[in-house]
Amino acid sequence: MRMYDIILKKRNGYELSKEEIDFFVQNYTKGDIPDYQAAAFLMAVYFQKMNKQETSDLTLSMVNSGDRLDLSGIKGIKVDKHSTGGVGDKTSLVLGPMVAACGVPVAKMSGRGLGHTGGTIDKLESIKGFTVEMNRDSFLGNVNTIGFSIGSQTGNLAPADKKIYSLRDVTATVDNISLIASSIMSKKIASGADAIVLDVKVGSGAFMRNMNDAFELAREMVDIGNSLKRKTIAVISHMDEPLGLAVGNALEVKEAIDTLKGKGPEDLMELCLVLGSHMLILAGKAKDIDEAREMLKNTIENKSALNKFKEFVQAQKGDINAVDNPDENLPVSKYKVDYNAKDEGFIESILADKIGMASLVLGAGRETKESTIDLSVGIVLKRKSGSYVGKGDTIMSIHGNDEDKIKQCIKLIDDAVIITKNQVQAPKLIYGTVV
Amino acid sequence: MRMYDIILKKRNGYELSKEEIDFFVQNYTKGDIPDYQAAAFLMAVYFQKMNKQETSDLTLSMVNSGDRLDLSGIKGIKVDKHSTGGVGDKTSLVLGPMVAACGVPVAKMSGRGLGHTGGTIDKLESIKGFTVEMNRDSFLGNVNTIGFSIGSQTGNLAPADKKIYSLRDVTATVDNISLIASSIMSKKIASGADAIVLDVKVGSGAFMRNMNDAFELAREMVDIGNSLKRKTIAVISHMDEPLGLAVGNALEVKEAIDTLKGKGPEDLMELCLVLGSHMLILAGKAKDIDEAREMLKNTIENKSALNKFKEFVQAQKGDINAVDNPDENLPVSKYKVDYNAKDEGFIESILADKIGMASLVLGAGRETKESTIDLSVGIVLKRKSGSYVGKGDTIMSIHGNDEDKIKQCIKLIDDAVIITKNQVQAPKLIYGTVV
Repeated sequence: MRMYDIILKKRNGYELSKEEIDFFVQNYTKGDIPDYQAAAFLMAVYFQKMNKQETSDLTLSMVNSGDRLDLSGIKGIKVDKHSTGGVGDKTSLVLGPMVAACGVPVAKMSGRGLGHTGGTIDKLESIKGFTVEMNRDSFLGNVNTIGFSIGSQTGNLAPADKKIYSLRDVTATVDNISLIASSIMSKKIASGADAIVLDVKVGSGAFMRNMNDAFELAREMVDIGNSLKRKTIAVISHMDEPLGLAVGNALEVKEAIDTLKGKGPEDLMELCLVLGSHMLILAGKAKDIDEAREMLKNTIENKSALNKFKEFVQAQKGDINAVDNPDENLPVSKYKVDYNAKDEGFIESILADKIGMASLVLGAGRETKESTIDLSVGIVLKRKSGSYVGKGDTIMSIHGNDEDKIKQCIKLIDDAVIITKNQVQAPKLIYGTVV
Repeated sequence: MRMYDIILKKRNGYELSKEEIDFFVQNYTKGDIPDYQAAAFLMAVYFQKMNKQETSDLTLSMVNSGDRLDLSGIKGIKVDKHSTGGVGDKTSLVLGPMVAACGVPVAKMSGRGLGHTGGTIDKLESIKGFTVEMNRDSFLGNVNTIGFSIGSQTGNLAPADKKIYSLRDVTATVDNISLIASSIMSKKIASGADAIVLDVKVGSGAFMRNMNDAFELAREMVDIGNSLKRKTIAVISHMDEPLGLAVGNALEVKEAIDTLKGKGPEDLMELCLVLGSHMLILAGKAKDIDEAREMLKNTIENKSALNKFKEFVQAQKGDINAVDNPDENLPVSKYKVDYNAKDEGFIESILADKIGMASLVLGAGRETKESTIDLSVGIVLKRKSGSYVGKGDTIMSIHGNDEDKIKQCIKLIDDAVIITKNQVQAPKLIYGTVV
């Protein structure tokens, strides 16, 4: 088998066999196929696409390129939740304890990554002492005793995906549905999940900007999951404006804690109920959505989710006072500047991508791998789209430590906020489900 | 400017600017753009194509990536002839002396290359003592005094083309009309020609297998030439069966000499008259085709072309006896085996690609850069398509030095020769002209 022939075959629009796909993945990972052949191949895939079978084969081959996390030491069906990423998405911090409180183990591997805020791990480090550095036994032990643990990704999971993604990133071959879907799913499957709930976000702050693309990606990922014997379901959710109200690391942790206390924003709570319901059903803990929602709501009302979160923080050496009294125990910025409405009217949108950029400018995220995150900074919305504001009403607060950065941030927010005279409906949160 | 954006722009189907194309060509040649980005770009070009302006810009940029041969020391208009390559193509050896005998200087740079036989230089080395190693002054001096010289390519001509071609060769991005045309034309223009006559071959033994592709390539190259101020004309010629009768190095040299003596195959002579006529017109030596053909025919009748060839051989240290008496002074193979008709009927075709392969198997060409050529071996046709043969009539002779290779060769010839009961017309030699 020669890589040249595989490139040519795909370029000419033919379906590749499992063996051909595996030849590419394994030999490219080993370094036996040069980058330039892989780049030409990926561009040919961009134009000629891959069908369902090829996409499934690609995913499995990437899983097989490295280690698989062995979660067999954890009792029960392991259900993983994955979001395609959005602004203000602190769902994992709320959903994990809720689901764990219902008796479904949540063993989450998380990364740091680049973006408008840090990853889940970065956010959690807002809590003094909190650590994600555990050996495998402690991690699994925590899941077994508490039901919930978040660790930093260890092991050599789907190294093929890592290598292929790096190449796609510099050769303009990222935006192909098969390549995106197989990249996400290979990591999930290598992480040892038995079942997967996907939160596919759509809108200005999401990777998928339009509805058709989001449903197409969801369809592709669900098909991959099912073809590889993982029960998979995808929820398509709104990401035209930030999820909840807080964007920033400590600010999002505080909002997650508020939500666990029953005082969080409505959209965040609702998304957790929707995603959580599917997790409970896939785990065999609830027979239908109604039952699952009731169970999850109870974890908030009876504080069992909050207590689960406390146990989790304590087990990972975090300061419990941050949960009891976040205002006094989480990092706080030097400045807090209100951003007020310039006109009266209805808020048509608070564009998530612009707010994400504004948050990055304040220092909440990483522009490059070497950037340091400022955990205290960010933005907190007071209003969301659909609401009416009078001129001068506060729409959001900017939490910053640098006056110049706050000025830059305000410019970006100017572009994010659109106010209109016409009445505006609050947007839908959930656009559908793909099973 | 970033290569990433240039890949993306082409991938999305937009026209690239001269500056963007030049950025790619110059920086890739220098090694500042990695192979993997170039490979992704070339695959995007394969799918999205380049328009006339982009193709012309690409050609000029590749010319500018290296040296240009300065032919200003040669008096008169320098007209170059280029063939896209075929089996049994010894045109340069006949055409050069004919045109030179008409007073048009022919300064030909030639290579060795891979293929079913050697390149023009390899063929000439069948003549004892013949050398192509000259310094620039001797080369130009020979052209000025004799009117005809063939040298091996010197200088760093179009290094971008060399580098890009090598990459295309291993990434399945060879067969794009803009990339093929710009590759050929960049070398011609860097070689210093004022005007160019292209022989675009079409058929089983040619790079272009079908008529539309051949005309498309011709159109593209003529447009490039004209856009870069080189008068350019293309002739589309038949390459479904070998040109002339001989395939092999010494065998082709002998056939070229026979043709200069007025005893060559009709198709070879005719092609030389057609290509030569265009060369004389472009050089301003003849006012029209009729006049040019008369002048060229005269060079055969009055032996001026043959004498020019002798002067040329002598100037490049070759043994003149090889010209006067080729049968006794050119390398001869140990075996000569006749290949006879298995049925009676009309020869429908003697497929050039198969005959080329058979010649390669005998040792007449190079499979890899390191292969050694056997100058004596090859195939000589006795019949061509359209002719009637009785069972057992000799169709061709195999000249070889190794019995096993001859056996392999015969198998290939079995596939090359198609005999039918229906009457077959001899094929056309010239399919058209693109100006």
